[in-house]
Amino acid sequence: MAEKTPVVGIIMGSKSDLPTMEGCTAELERLGVPYELVIASAHRTPDKVHEWAATAADRGIKVIIAAAGKAAHLGGVVAAFTPLPVIGVPMKTSDLGGLDSLLSMVQMPSGVPVACVAINGSKNAAIFATQILGATMPEYRTVIENMKREMAEA
Amino acid sequence: MAEKTPVVGIIMGSKSDLPTMEGCTAELERLGVPYELVIASAHRTPDKVHEWAATAADRGIKVIIAAAGKAAHLGGVVAAFTPLPVIGVPMKTSDLGGLDSLLSMVQMPSGVPVACVAINGSKNAAIFATQILGATMPEYRTVIENMKREMAEA
Amino acid sequence: MAEKTPVVGIIMGSKSDLPTMEGCTAELERLGVPYELVIASAHRTPDKVHEWAATAADRGIKVIIAAAGKAAHLGGVVAAFTPLPVIGVPMKTSDLGGLDSLLSMVQMPSGVPVACVAINGSKNAAIFATQILGATMPEYRTVIENMKREMAEA
Amino acid sequence: MAEKTPVVGIIMGSKSDLPTMEGCTAELERLGVPYELVIASAHRTPDKVHEWAATAADRGIKVIIAAAGKAAHLGGVVAAFTPLPVIGVPMKTSDLGGLDSLLSMVQMPSGVPVACVAINGSKNAAIFATQILGATMPEYRTVIENMKREMAEA
Amino acid sequence: MAEKTPVVGIIMGSKSDLPTMEGCTAELERLGVPYELVIASAHRTPDKVHEWAATAADRGIKVIIAAAGKAAHLGGVVAAFTPLPVIGVPMKTSDLGGLDSLLSMVQMPSGVPVACVAINGSKNAAIFATQILGATMPEYRTVIENMKREMAEA
Amino acid sequence: MAEKTPVVGIIMGSKSDLPTMEGCTAELERLGVPYELVIASAHRTPDKVHEWAATAADRGIKVIIAAAGKAAHLGGVVAAFTPLPVIGVPMKTSDLGGLDSLLSMVQMPSGVPVACVAINGSKNAAIFATQILGATMPEYRTVIENMKREMAEA
Amino acid sequence: MAEKTPVVGIIMGSKSDLPTMEGCTAELERLGVPYELVIASAHRTPDKVHEWAATAADRGIKVIIAAAGKAAHLGGVVAAFTPLPVIGVPMKTSDLGGLDSLLSMVQMPSGVPVACVAINGSKNAAIFATQILGATMPEYRTVIENMKREMAEA
Amino acid sequence: MAEKTPVVGIIMGSKSDLPTMEGCTAELERLGVPYELVIASAHRTPDKVHEWAATAADRGIKVIIAAAGKAAHLGGVVAAFTPLPVIGVPMKTSDLGGLDSLLSMVQMPSGVPVACVAINGSKNAAIFATQILGATMPEYRTVIENMKREMAEA
Repeated sequence: MAEKTPVVGIIMGSKSDLPTMEGCTAELERLGVPYELVIASAHRTPDKVHEWAATAADRGIKVIIAAAGKAAHLGGVVAAFTPLPVIGVPMKTSDLGGLDSLLSMVQMPSGVPVACVAINGSKNAAIFATQILGATMPEYRTVIENMKREMAEA
Repeated sequence: MAEKTPVVGIIMGSKSDLPTMEGCTAELERLGVPYELVIASAHRTPDKVHEWAATAADRGIKVIIAAAGKAAHLGGVVAAFTPLPVIGVPMKTSDLGGLDSLLSMVQMPSGVPVACVAINGSKNAAIFATQILGATMPEYRTVIENMKREMAEA
Repeated sequence: MAEKTPVVGIIMGSKSDLPTMEGCTAELERLGVPYELVIASAHRTPDKVHEWAATAADRGIKVIIAAAGKAAHLGGVVAAFTPLPVIGVPMKTSDLGGLDSLLSMVQMPSGVPVACVAINGSKNAAIFATQILGATMPEYRTVIENMKREMAEA
Repeated sequence: MAEKTPVVGIIMGSKSDLPTMEGCTAELERLGVPYELVIASAHRTPDKVHEWAATAADRGIKVIIAAAGKAAHLGGVVAAFTPLPVIGVPMKTSDLGGLDSLLSMVQMPSGVPVACVAINGSKNAAIFATQILGATMPEYRTVIENMKREMAEA
Repeated sequence: MAEKTPVVGIIMGSKSDLPTMEGCTAELERLGVPYELVIASAHRTPDKVHEWAATAADRGIKVIIAAAGKAAHLGGVVAAFTPLPVIGVPMKTSDLGGLDSLLSMVQMPSGVPVACVAINGSKNAAIFATQILGATMPEYRTVIENMKREMAEA
Repeated sequence: MAEKTPVVGIIMGSKSDLPTMEGCTAELERLGVPYELVIASAHRTPDKVHEWAATAADRGIKVIIAAAGKAAHLGGVVAAFTPLPVIGVPMKTSDLGGLDSLLSMVQMPSGVPVACVAINGSKNAAIFATQILGATMPEYRTVIENMKREMAEA
Repeated sequence: MAEKTPVVGIIMGSKSDLPTMEGCTAELERLGVPYELVIASAHRTPDKVHEWAATAADRGIKVIIAAAGKAAHLGGVVAAFTPLPVIGVPMKTSDLGGLDSLLSMVQMPSGVPVACVAINGSKNAAIFATQILGATMPEYRTVIENMKREMAEA
Repeated sequence: MAEKTPVVGIIMGSKSDLPTMEGCTAELERLGVPYELVIASAHRTPDKVHEWAATAADRGIKVIIAAAGKAAHLGGVVAAFTPLPVIGVPMKTSDLGGLDSLLSMVQMPSGVPVACVAINGSKNAAIFATQILGATMPEYRTVIENMKREMAEA
């Protein structure tokens, strides 16, 4: 993806989220959507998150995907510093199954939404990001239409 | 909103969702985003939903907001028939508080995402829809940036 | 089962539901109830579901069993297109144990019921389908009475 | 309904379930389905429940609707004594919202299903009972088809 | 235990509960409390349960322990037919962890209590049964006092 | 109740539990079971609880009923200091409906059981206490048998 | 409290949390603990939160109390920017009762703890803050000891 | 740690909690905080808990960490007997994932707080204990500041 400017920015709270999020990067690659990826914690490295989020739009990023688990604040913290839409991917947890991650991401207060996909729904986050691009960009609209056609035929 | 072509399509499963969803329409009006609104049930009037969803993109709609409660299938059914991004608004329920609506909306299977905001998060659905428009359209980006600035100052 | 016209139609949202649903087909075979089985997703192949559901009654199907997991809309979508009774089988999920599937199936809005058996209750779905047939058809009534007698004796 | 033989038997665990279950009786009357109704507790009057359930089929009852709350055993107890299909209606509870009633009804063990509608889903229980009758009896099939048509038009 | 008249009656809904309930029988043996054990299902063999429960007091049983899982009605059904105290042991379930069993057992309606110990709390059921005997019988009171002393010293 | 030695000891964590627990005292009075009642908190007045629990058996108490809400430790703390059987009554809470109270009471570790009735199940606690007395004392056995007969006739 | 330097800093996410948090300020006043109070949202005014948290220690604040509801990130965001201990007060919510707030606060990832009191436990947050001060400061230790004594006597 | 007076007291309800709590002791050692550790059950050895808690402050302990599972009363029982701050560590459970432990610890009644970290959050309990020491003791403040710096750099 080096030669194209990333339009999707993926951020995840911990290296341990990476295997799950490979479902996201694989799908973005399959759909031909250039992305960048960073691992940064809203709690352990807040300045890094702040900096990354606040400059994302200027770098050309159009959609952000934030993956985190447990008290999953990452999506909300990113959303606080960017005008871009933030898609949350709640990570499955070993004790509460991810209900904690889901509620921590989806129950955002008025004014700063994070829109969530399913627990561990990394592939769907990639598709939703592409649908956001396709809302106004015909080439991505076509990508989604083709994907849906192939899915129906499979 | 009559004079501008709607870019956001709002669909809700029941007339009883309307008072909650006025938080959505009010916010879209405040943000200057033209929308259309329909009440149709995925279960009672499936053909109407199908028709509305399948033609939304051609009517110029760019983002869909679907609000439903209990076994809230509306978002998923709409998402099945459109390449557009679908934002789900799970309605609070009188028995389970909306946990049923939330899980029915957010736990979508691979391939067909619905991205959810909070239970009864109608205002945030409007903001997220505008953020989607602003991902690629500078005028809506500005709208969101202004809104965030005003919110910080309030 | 080829020689008899199917009276039970089984539909499931994903091939991955098949191992669990073999508890259903095995029981129908044991009880001597001819069935047909289709795999189709309410979200990925909605037209196939629509077509299958809308024509089920005309094919001679009298009861439908719908199995799905997570945001399990399949039962509701099928119920929207058929006058036949639809039995829902919520699939166990790896994160929330199937509570998501159960609530997505059972909490149907007024007018379009889906009656659910237990999470992964595939065998019971077969028995309930046979009880529905036995409500008015003496030969199936006898099948259920015999099954209950054998069960008590076992 | 005195002049027609009841084909649906409604049983509820407590007088306090009656106001909610009027949604069921009203719908059965609207659909023209003759029913009988009894209040009997699986725990306080088990012999009455046993007797009623064991003789229901012989009285001409074809479908049973059982409504109960909290540790809602009524459906299961009735199902143990009849070959007829038993529809469970879990009552909303003041402390856990009806999650207790739902799980107590729906999670039936292998061999003795109770198929549940939504929490407080009394109207849907009536419709599902009629769909069961309509599975094999053309006059009730027509009733359901008409109801669905009217619903779509409303 | 053959030579002494059983004073505790253990009933469980399924053979699969036996490994867990060995924690109960082992503890009763350690405490010197004679018991009888039966496997019978409230749903599959209701008459056997009824007969066993209704005659328990006359056989000399003083306390009943009922173990069951999922829609765990066994305790309530037994309690309906005996004046003896019934201790419920909710079995852990593979999907909902036993929350279904617990709520199905503990949330009994007014008039017919089942007092529950923890999910899979088979050893504690034995201790509680012995405490019930010890409420009025000095020899069992001493057994409990000794057990508590040993526990504190261990 | 002054003239008879109390055989049931009721303890509750807070004065605010009293209105709910009047369902317990009223039932004990109706059943003719003498009781004593104390309000003491496991956390605010632990020594009072300790003293009361440790001396209960010597005062002639045979069964203890402990009512508490939220992190409801009272039953467990009492059970730690007495060989008597302790019945827990989990109080309904305004935020989590009493699920917190229930789990805090029922999930006792091995060795020290508290047997719980339903959330707010104060009347059933009284009946269960009487059943414990009736396990070995014929006069209380008769009381329960009469109560069950009246209940069935009511 | 103007004349003494605040040692406890209270931050809450929304003006609507103020009535509940008056239980906290009233208790701090009763215990004689000087505090400061700010209303700032982790999402709507992140820079204000950052600034307040990052400078709290230098202002002489020794303990922070953070109250927030729904996706309650405030405690975690504050904890990211201060070495001081942060006590979380999860606000009760109208749909999920505060389970969302609790999980969003308490399930913090390794490295950045927020220690939570009960849902709406504003008074206990004040007491815990004072206990933290009393861990090393004799005058606050005495305050807590006196409070416990009065509580036991009340 | 023998040569320094312990300032943190760790208590856990069962030997089986030890592997999880090694995350706590390892972190305290890494941070240079001397601690003592005891295994004692609020229910099986209440006098040992009482004695340990009541004398902790006099032994020089400044912060207590209590770890327990299921009906996790240990934190509350300890808090009842000491003016020191008590940090609760709810243990993950095999059936309910630790939701029972969490609610049993965190939902403490007014007057006697236990402040909880995450389920199995043993490392964070160590950090929080050190933050409490650092609230007023500069050497521990420095320890936390260094830890946060290293964490951000890692």
